[in-house]
Amino acid sequence: MDYTESFLEEYLESFDRLKRKDRLQSSLPLPTMSEIKNLTVSLMALFFPGQRETMDKAVLKLAVSESYHKASSILMDAAFKAIRYESPDKSQDLCLEEAEGYIKHLTAKLPEIRRLLKLDAEAGFDGDPAARSVHEVILCYPALHAITVHRVAHELFREGLPIIPRMMNEIAHSQTGIDIHPGAEIGESFFIDHGTGVVIGETTVIGKHVKLYQGVTLGALSIPKKDTLSETETKKRHPTIEDNVTIYAGSTILGDITIGHDTIIASNAWIKDSIPAESMVITARPEIKVRPIRREE
Amino acid sequence: MDYTESFLEEYLESFDRLKRKDRLQSSLPLPTMSEIKNLTVSLMALFFPGQRETMDKAVLKLAVSESYHKASSILMDAAFKAIRYESPDKSQDLCLEEAEGYIKHLTAKLPEIRRLLKLDAEAGFDGDPAARSVHEVILCYPALHAITVHRVAHELFREGLPIIPRMMNEIAHSQTGIDIHPGAEIGESFFIDHGTGVVIGETTVIGKHVKLYQGVTLGALSIPKKDTLSETETKKRHPTIEDNVTIYAGSTILGDITIGHDTIIASNAWIKDSIPAESMVITARPEIKVRPIRREE
Amino acid sequence: MDYTESFLEEYLESFDRLKRKDRLQSSLPLPTMSEIKNLTVSLMALFFPGQRETMDKAVLKLAVSESYHKASSILMDAAFKAIRYESPDKSQDLCLEEAEGYIKHLTAKLPEIRRLLKLDAEAGFDGDPAARSVHEVILCYPALHAITVHRVAHELFREGLPIIPRMMNEIAHSQTGIDIHPGAEIGESFFIDHGTGVVIGETTVIGKHVKLYQGVTLGALSIPKKDTLSETETKKRHPTIEDNVTIYAGSTILGDITIGHDTIIASNAWIKDSIPAESMVITARPEIKVRPIRREE
Amino acid sequence: MDYTESFLEEYLESFDRLKRKDRLQSSLPLPTMSEIKNLTVSLMALFFPGQRETMDKAVLKLAVSESYHKASSILMDAAFKAIRYESPDKSQDLCLEEAEGYIKHLTAKLPEIRRLLKLDAEAGFDGDPAARSVHEVILCYPALHAITVHRVAHELFREGLPIIPRMMNEIAHSQTGIDIHPGAEIGESFFIDHGTGVVIGETTVIGKHVKLYQGVTLGALSIPKKDTLSETETKKRHPTIEDNVTIYAGSTILGDITIGHDTIIASNAWIKDSIPAESMVITARPEIKVRPIRREE
Amino acid sequence: MDYTESFLEEYLESFDRLKRKDRLQSSLPLPTMSEIKNLTVSLMALFFPGQRETMDKAVLKLAVSESYHKASSILMDAAFKAIRYESPDKSQDLCLEEAEGYIKHLTAKLPEIRRLLKLDAEAGFDGDPAARSVHEVILCYPALHAITVHRVAHELFREGLPIIPRMMNEIAHSQTGIDIHPGAEIGESFFIDHGTGVVIGETTVIGKHVKLYQGVTLGALSIPKKDTLSETETKKRHPTIEDNVTIYAGSTILGDITIGHDTIIASNAWIKDSIPAESMVITARPEIKVRPIRREE
Amino acid sequence: MDYTESFLEEYLESFDRLKRKDRLQSSLPLPTMSEIKNLTVSLMALFFPGQRETMDKAVLKLAVSESYHKASSILMDAAFKAIRYESPDKSQDLCLEEAEGYIKHLTAKLPEIRRLLKLDAEAGFDGDPAARSVHEVILCYPALHAITVHRVAHELFREGLPIIPRMMNEIAHSQTGIDIHPGAEIGESFFIDHGTGVVIGETTVIGKHVKLYQGVTLGALSIPKKDTLSETETKKRHPTIEDNVTIYAGSTILGDITIGHDTIIASNAWIKDSIPAESMVITARPEIKVRPIRREE
Repeated sequence: MDYTESFLEEYLESFDRLKRKDRLQSSLPLPTMSEIKNLTVSLMALFFPGQRETMDKAVLKLAVSESYHKASSILMDAAFKAIRYESPDKSQDLCLEEAEGYIKHLTAKLPEIRRLLKLDAEAGFDGDPAARSVHEVILCYPALHAITVHRVAHELFREGLPIIPRMMNEIAHSQTGIDIHPGAEIGESFFIDHGTGVVIGETTVIGKHVKLYQGVTLGALSIPKKDTLSETETKKRHPTIEDNVTIYAGSTILGDITIGHDTIIASNAWIKDSIPAESMVITARPEIKVRPIRREE
Repeated sequence: MDYTESFLEEYLESFDRLKRKDRLQSSLPLPTMSEIKNLTVSLMALFFPGQRETMDKAVLKLAVSESYHKASSILMDAAFKAIRYESPDKSQDLCLEEAEGYIKHLTAKLPEIRRLLKLDAEAGFDGDPAARSVHEVILCYPALHAITVHRVAHELFREGLPIIPRMMNEIAHSQTGIDIHPGAEIGESFFIDHGTGVVIGETTVIGKHVKLYQGVTLGALSIPKKDTLSETETKKRHPTIEDNVTIYAGSTILGDITIGHDTIIASNAWIKDSIPAESMVITARPEIKVRPIRREE
Repeated sequence: MDYTESFLEEYLESFDRLKRKDRLQSSLPLPTMSEIKNLTVSLMALFFPGQRETMDKAVLKLAVSESYHKASSILMDAAFKAIRYESPDKSQDLCLEEAEGYIKHLTAKLPEIRRLLKLDAEAGFDGDPAARSVHEVILCYPALHAITVHRVAHELFREGLPIIPRMMNEIAHSQTGIDIHPGAEIGESFFIDHGTGVVIGETTVIGKHVKLYQGVTLGALSIPKKDTLSETETKKRHPTIEDNVTIYAGSTILGDITIGHDTIIASNAWIKDSIPAESMVITARPEIKVRPIRREE
Repeated sequence: MDYTESFLEEYLESFDRLKRKDRLQSSLPLPTMSEIKNLTVSLMALFFPGQRETMDKAVLKLAVSESYHKASSILMDAAFKAIRYESPDKSQDLCLEEAEGYIKHLTAKLPEIRRLLKLDAEAGFDGDPAARSVHEVILCYPALHAITVHRVAHELFREGLPIIPRMMNEIAHSQTGIDIHPGAEIGESFFIDHGTGVVIGETTVIGKHVKLYQGVTLGALSIPKKDTLSETETKKRHPTIEDNVTIYAGSTILGDITIGHDTIIASNAWIKDSIPAESMVITARPEIKVRPIRREE
Repeated sequence: MDYTESFLEEYLESFDRLKRKDRLQSSLPLPTMSEIKNLTVSLMALFFPGQRETMDKAVLKLAVSESYHKASSILMDAAFKAIRYESPDKSQDLCLEEAEGYIKHLTAKLPEIRRLLKLDAEAGFDGDPAARSVHEVILCYPALHAITVHRVAHELFREGLPIIPRMMNEIAHSQTGIDIHPGAEIGESFFIDHGTGVVIGETTVIGKHVKLYQGVTLGALSIPKKDTLSETETKKRHPTIEDNVTIYAGSTILGDITIGHDTIIASNAWIKDSIPAESMVITARPEIKVRPIRREE
Repeated sequence: MDYTESFLEEYLESFDRLKRKDRLQSSLPLPTMSEIKNLTVSLMALFFPGQRETMDKAVLKLAVSESYHKASSILMDAAFKAIRYESPDKSQDLCLEEAEGYIKHLTAKLPEIRRLLKLDAEAGFDGDPAARSVHEVILCYPALHAITVHRVAHELFREGLPIIPRMMNEIAHSQTGIDIHPGAEIGESFFIDHGTGVVIGETTVIGKHVKLYQGVTLGALSIPKKDTLSETETKKRHPTIEDNVTIYAGSTILGDITIGHDTIIASNAWIKDSIPAESMVITARPEIKVRPIRREE
């Protein structure tokens, strides 16, 4: 239609004008969210292969091998794109070699990750009176999905793979409402109940047997970015949560503080200072007034 | 590649080692999340068939019959798998017979569920000044999606169908941020505005004309699971909300208490004790200090 | 099966009975959520075309033209359905003409929307110490997805296109946990961190360089709908947030009040009155009691 | 683009001009080829349900019931459209009633059709030295696919269902190269080897235990259509093939003649006159000259 | 697995060895068959838009515009790839400009092509006593599909677009068994009955009102390619068929000869010499011997 | 509906009755045609990986590795099913071991198969004056598709893999109209022009540089199966075609005869006896009578 052509010209000129400033468009493609989504699907199947017709050892090997090859094939392709995008001057051979390096590293870690995920699933079962079986936890609890994606993304993030770990966690965030930065270090037997609204920041460190409820934030105090960019990238800005800590719904823990081991934090607490081990943290509840209603507010 | 083969061996051995302990892998397949997602899609089409070209009575019958057969076909298959998984010693004939029993039960309830959903949609329209029509509520409000799935899942849960009701509600949770356990009993003309972060626990009982806002938790006080497993499964652990109650955003109601009818609870309240009927519950707001800014915190 | 036939009869009768009252079933189809979801996918590709093999200007034109035609083709079809549904007595020619009017209007706005989105992306990068590049913000931050959809939906809403803008925002809500009503006016360089649970109401007005965190509500005080329906549709019920305001996680701002420019609001604040410009709003934190744990609560 | 708009105007005018003459565009939609393709897929699954994990009787019932409901649901929808298109003045209720009549008729015939298909499969096995099992015939022989579709299409064609039977056979034609008009009557234990290029005309009658090879035509002599339209529709124009006849590759049988039972027709025969029963028909092969080659033709 | 790695090395080396000789792998991608298949689907929808809910003029414009944009978007992308592949040294801008030139040329021809296709459909209806309506011809006759694809491919081939016209016709060949080289010139009111096995060569010229049956070959006499490559590309090697000619099933017409107008050629004829106008060509049928069968051959 | 239930009962009983006789339904699933279709797609990508953005060696390795893993994963799964189906008493471990054996065997053959396919493609280019490039042959010639599938299927057939090789060739047959039994042995530089209707039987042996045209049959003389079943399985029943033979369209060569090297066979020949080497076989064309037409036949 008539307005189409003039629109396209003007719209494309706007790319030119804006590109000079920050080159939002690179000349090479990044992996897409849907590729990374398929990666997370293959990883779930790799760790929890219980969907095929029978699970005798022979068939299990078939299923696991298939999921492994699918996941590593997607990751290989995506890692190659991400590395090349980040460093357009690297040779293609070098990009591929590095991509294969990430696969090798991750492959070596898979048995350990699976061991951790089984402990996470058991922690979920032990911690929720409504859970009927470990299988229900694996199938139906968003936390296990988010943690599975995180444990893989974290390994790749630590090794320095660009952008893909963040994409992985954002996919899990979109599906579960649980937002875990791939930089966070999380110990074994971790669980989150319900989970919507949980935020776990980049430099968070979490010990063993920690349990969170929905709406918990493990965040940073606000830091102006401009002046401290290189510093903020390395500096610890988020809490350390020691072993056996439980944090109830809606609590906010901010800054590089430490919540000592075997501590319980009640819901809706707001904490900016370290808490000693074996504490019970109770919030003084805001008083409520109950008065007979008169149908207006 | 070289590391692949050794990985597969090691990885599979880890299944062996771990299986002895808790046999995470059963020998029979469960329904998959994507099957159950298709089930919820068919159910939405069954209750709200307004997408076909014309909706004269004749065509309506065609559309409804199609959705019904699709939904019952998926459910039949999934229920069969879930029952057989749960009771591997049952004969296939018995599993199928039981699966058909669930379909029959649900079929008998469908007209009543549809009646309830229409009341829910109207409650949504009446309760939101921004709603332009009941159709907008049906199409655009996540609450109606979550409630539709819940009302069906609840029927199946009550009859004892394993795992599928929980899968259904987790799908709705992932799509809407509203987490309703299929055990919860919910009366007519129920609505939730916005909805993200709402959690409704397994033994919650909700009366008629109740309205919730985003971030409301109807939860349990923490109970150690180990010692009380059989007890917790039957015991009421969550609140009872009587008729005509409104609960504003972010409030938390915990434990087997009762919120009396015709009560309004302000946002961010934290309640562990019963509230008499016809009350207005107001939170003493935490004082805020407003001071001129000096650009540092 | 036997119960099927009788079910269908009864179920369809229930449509008859209920239809008389509120004709939930219209005789003409509405656009479906999956059509509108495809629309949002095409819009994302139109604004951020960085996924194709190369991005030289020539290829960029190809990519942009393809996305534009896809988006406008879906919108044309959906707008036609929405208008015809809303006004069944309009001629088809008139419905199509009006649908094309919406496309023209939106087309004229696209370069400006893209300019705004680039500023939003830069604001996200500047505001998050964890962001490694603007591209990471575009790919991985749910806020940018929600804002992109909103900026388009808002244009269509302002022009009066029925129901589609609401469907668009509900799709973004489902994917990001960020719920922005298409009526809200939002200035340039806007950003939301994490985002889960954010609610922005219909008559909200937001200035430039505003930043929100997860769980922030910009809502209305409760108004009974029945008596004031026509009034509520036009009246401003939600806050005005002036330039350079930052609102931390979990804060609730209610009613037609004004938060003055250059103001910072701490997390979990609850505000019903206007705040002067250049203020720092600090919540008196509920005191916490920390006591040695004794393993019971 | 500039030429787009003017093209659309001119192109649409061409619809106007041409419509007056023969109204190629009706105002109501027909079933699509892809709908009918799905129908044939469901029918194959209904007759040969051997793809599911186990085939105990209980599971078989599940599989068959699912395929039956899928096939009848697609056919219901398609038949409704075809009837309404053919008779735009019929009420929707009547169209639906008639559509259901076709389903009922076909349902009653299904056990008999399945019996015939098993005999066809056995005939294929018996007739091809290369066949290793009846299952190979079912899975791998295009003839069985074409015959399955034909036996269903023929029932619907005989009852008068418009256009759908022809669409069904054209789908099988496209997939197998075997072109059987739905009007053809075909007896039990029928088989076609290889099949590419086989054509069987509308009024053909085929007895029991008939076998065809690739490239066989059972056609009509040329008849000018104009003057005899009503007559040609009813008149028998194609051959009758009696029981136990075998026709080798590439033979052409034309007109309303009879090939008597227990006859064998050699390949590449060209026959316009009836052949008595128990005949062997041998073609005088065109002489070949074999001479030493001299590398030019 | 162990053999995988060594296989990949050896397999890739074989690419190296072979590449030197004929560089089967170019460094730039070609359009894929599935892209071109989608193009043919869009073209069918553009010419025969009769599948949407209503076909009033307004809606027709919508449907046609959508199909046009889809088809031209796919073609633009594919043409760009094909041109760049053919001429890797051309600038991207030039490739795109040329691609757009093909679209413009084709767009200008579309009304004429549609006019021709309507005449083809009518010719199909007039020529087959079994056809019940022109709509049946459009939906169910493979010939119309093959001719539609050909008429578009021919326009693009004549303008010099590389490889895509051949891909288009090969897709139609795979679906219909009708193999028309895009170079063939075909006049109006053309039809092919059944069609399986028809071959029409590159330099064939066909007049108006020509009708072919299945298995007809319009081919070339064998020419050694090596010595005459440039010559063969331009030289006419296939027959000219004048107006009003009918050629029955299985006939073979070879070489640059002319079949005069108003001629009928019987089935299975083998013709290497021109035939004068208004001829009836009858094949002396190979005599058949009919003898009583004795159950051995 | 009412007739549904009684239909299902009767229909299922018919399974019972018929099963006793030949147990068409086994208790274990076979691979499906769509799985095997995906296998052929992956194989095409493995041999002709020219569709990705660039084809430098590094990226080539990535593409080839991906296709290889996809193809071997599908084949592993399908082979396992086929073996288990064929020998229900084998242990699952043994079935898997055997399946892996087929993969290993095929993997070792892949470089040789690719070498052959390149020669086939070049033969296609050399033999068709209309071919513009080897790439056009690879993309657009059905013969290359059929031969690719055949060369893989033949390896698997020779090793004894049940049913899958036949399924592979039937898929190629459906897509190309070329029907090659996987048992046929075919030498290098083989090509088929157009191809529709070609049939190559199980025990055919074809030398190097052989070229066929459409409609050529290399078949068996008819043998009654019953009495000679075990014999027919092993006995050579089809022709041997020596090196450098060309067979033109529509010729039929039957029985275990030999066509000597460097021979040319004209179209439509019918041959049951061996032909010496270096022969030119010319068919005495059936005389045609050309007479002035009188507009009736």
